[in-house]
Amino acid sequence: MSGEFDLIERYFRPCTKARDDLLLGIGDDCALLAPPANRVLATSMDTYNAGVHFFTQDPADAIGHKVLAASLSDLAACGAEPAWVSLSIALPSADERWLAGFARGFCALARSSGLSLTGGDTTRGPMSISVHVTGFVAAGQALRRDGARAGDAIYVSGRLGDAALALRMAQHSEPGSRELEALQEKRLRPQARIALGRRLAGLAHACIDLSDGLSGDLAKLLSASGVGATIDLESLPLSTAVADYVRQHDGWDLPLSGGEDYELCFTIAADQHSELLATLNPHAGPCQRIGRVDASPGLRFRQADGRPFNPKTAGYQHFNE
Amino acid sequence: MSGEFDLIERYFRPCTKARDDLLLGIGDDCALLAPPANRVLATSMDTYNAGVHFFTQDPADAIGHKVLAASLSDLAACGAEPAWVSLSIALPSADERWLAGFARGFCALARSSGLSLTGGDTTRGPMSISVHVTGFVAAGQALRRDGARAGDAIYVSGRLGDAALALRMAQHSEPGSRELEALQEKRLRPQARIALGRRLAGLAHACIDLSDGLSGDLAKLLSASGVGATIDLESLPLSTAVADYVRQHDGWDLPLSGGEDYELCFTIAADQHSELLATLNPHAGPCQRIGRVDASPGLRFRQADGRPFNPKTAGYQHFNE
Repeated sequence: MSGEFDLIERYFRPCTKARDDLLLGIGDDCALLAPPANRVLATSMDTYNAGVHFFTQDPADAIGHKVLAASLSDLAACGAEPAWVSLSIALPSADERWLAGFARGFCALARSSGLSLTGGDTTRGPMSISVHVTGFVAAGQALRRDGARAGDAIYVSGRLGDAALALRMAQHSEPGSRELEALQEKRLRPQARIALGRRLAGLAHACIDLSDGLSGDLAKLLSASGVGATIDLESLPLSTAVADYVRQHDGWDLPLSGGEDYELCFTIAADQHSELLATLNPHAGPCQRIGRVDASPGLRFRQADGRPFNPKTAGYQHFNE
Repeated sequence: MSGEFDLIERYFRPCTKARDDLLLGIGDDCALLAPPANRVLATSMDTYNAGVHFFTQDPADAIGHKVLAASLSDLAACGAEPAWVSLSIALPSADERWLAGFARGFCALARSSGLSLTGGDTTRGPMSISVHVTGFVAAGQALRRDGARAGDAIYVSGRLGDAALALRMAQHSEPGSRELEALQEKRLRPQARIALGRRLAGLAHACIDLSDGLSGDLAKLLSASGVGATIDLESLPLSTAVADYVRQHDGWDLPLSGGEDYELCFTIAADQHSELLATLNPHAGPCQRIGRVDASPGLRFRQADGRPFNPKTAGYQHFNE
């Protein structure tokens, strides 16, 4: 069985070198990194635990992809360009086949995102993965949660609820159509909206990534900004499968609070709609206007007939029970 | 029960703000940090698991102190000045009393080290703690493992084996003298050699911190440098308690491979001994010359009578069995 240094050297080599600003990488007590001039660093660290953030029976390469995508989504929400990543893996035993799969998924996404692995370790313990990412963003252009203003238009990227529906299917082993099966890919291999975030830097007033669900995450943005919002349910971007689910189960909580969308929710001045469309290119993905920022605090949802709708849950929070 | 944001806000506030270069701290998707001009960043990330790196029955504040001290020791080994730290805590349940104690130990050391907590999270899972630290060091002055040269003198700071002896006592519940009990403090609240590391930057040829034990860690330094070494056992700095243990049990493996010393082992040109002594001040702590770097690869130990000594173990490695 190999030691920790060998394990990282062997499986993660494809993502350990790619950048000029990585002066000294894995293998010393510290990595040495040359920070960029005239940029600020955006950093985020998260831990992903088996049974909470992923299933141990998920494909190892999907787990490797997903933990990095979730961390990249934080960089996207700040409008940052991905640069460096540190990775710590705790495993009950050194399952080299699992590690090889995990590293394949992790390194493929790291490389396509321009990230270089700068450090980390492998330890013995219940399966748990910690990821620390660093990105660069022009000073003064970083997207934050606290800049939304009354009158702003509110947008989300992509579609909501696909991963949550896929999770529901996986948990209940419900037989699915080919379309439903395709949703599993959204759950297993989410895509962080890096290109969109970078285009929104300096344009959007406020931004947050949707990891816990629109209702909980947007509420955090509104609270940080000291404003409220009204969302039109019928404007939420939904796949056919999620729209069917909502109709059949009166199931708005799925797209509102299901979590793991990894889309961006952001606000811009209402008169900048055309500028927004001009700045997005096909790579940044579609964005949908879903409501407006109000001066009055609170998050309100409005049904097609104008009646209010109250979600049952407010997004996933650890220890919140 | 509180959500993750509240938990960090409540208990870690004492170490969340202290530095001008922390532009935006905990509470957004990312922290925003202004990197220093003309310095490089030294970063290290490690995960500490219950039952492997600490005992759950250890005092919570000692665990908070120890995980940060172990990470700071990596910065010390690079000669870096501590700046930023991210912290991720997985807990089986939100034990607020434990968290308050952990935060007290963690934040006290963070503040005395000049570190500001920039981010992190709390998740539900088996107890595990991940720490990512960033320090600053002048470009070209960072200490590395790979610069040792034949003829260099080899030094260690502090004393070796105290924490390992304390761990042995704790595991075997051996009754101890007052001196032996005092060693528990070395195990529970190790001190990273930050001041020494910063003074060695630009002076030492190579440096490593001793987390797994002298024999294993020095072997890594020698391997990275492509050289070997001869160590005189009688020159190793030992407390009376460890010296007694070695004599009674023929127990050289305790100071050589016991681990958790968190001292620095470094090499300097043999003719720079006086310069080294001049550069150290009382705050940097005592250093002991223990041997010399040889051109011939391999790590050799020599007893007082000149006979070679072969350690049984080569330092702790996860998955190395």
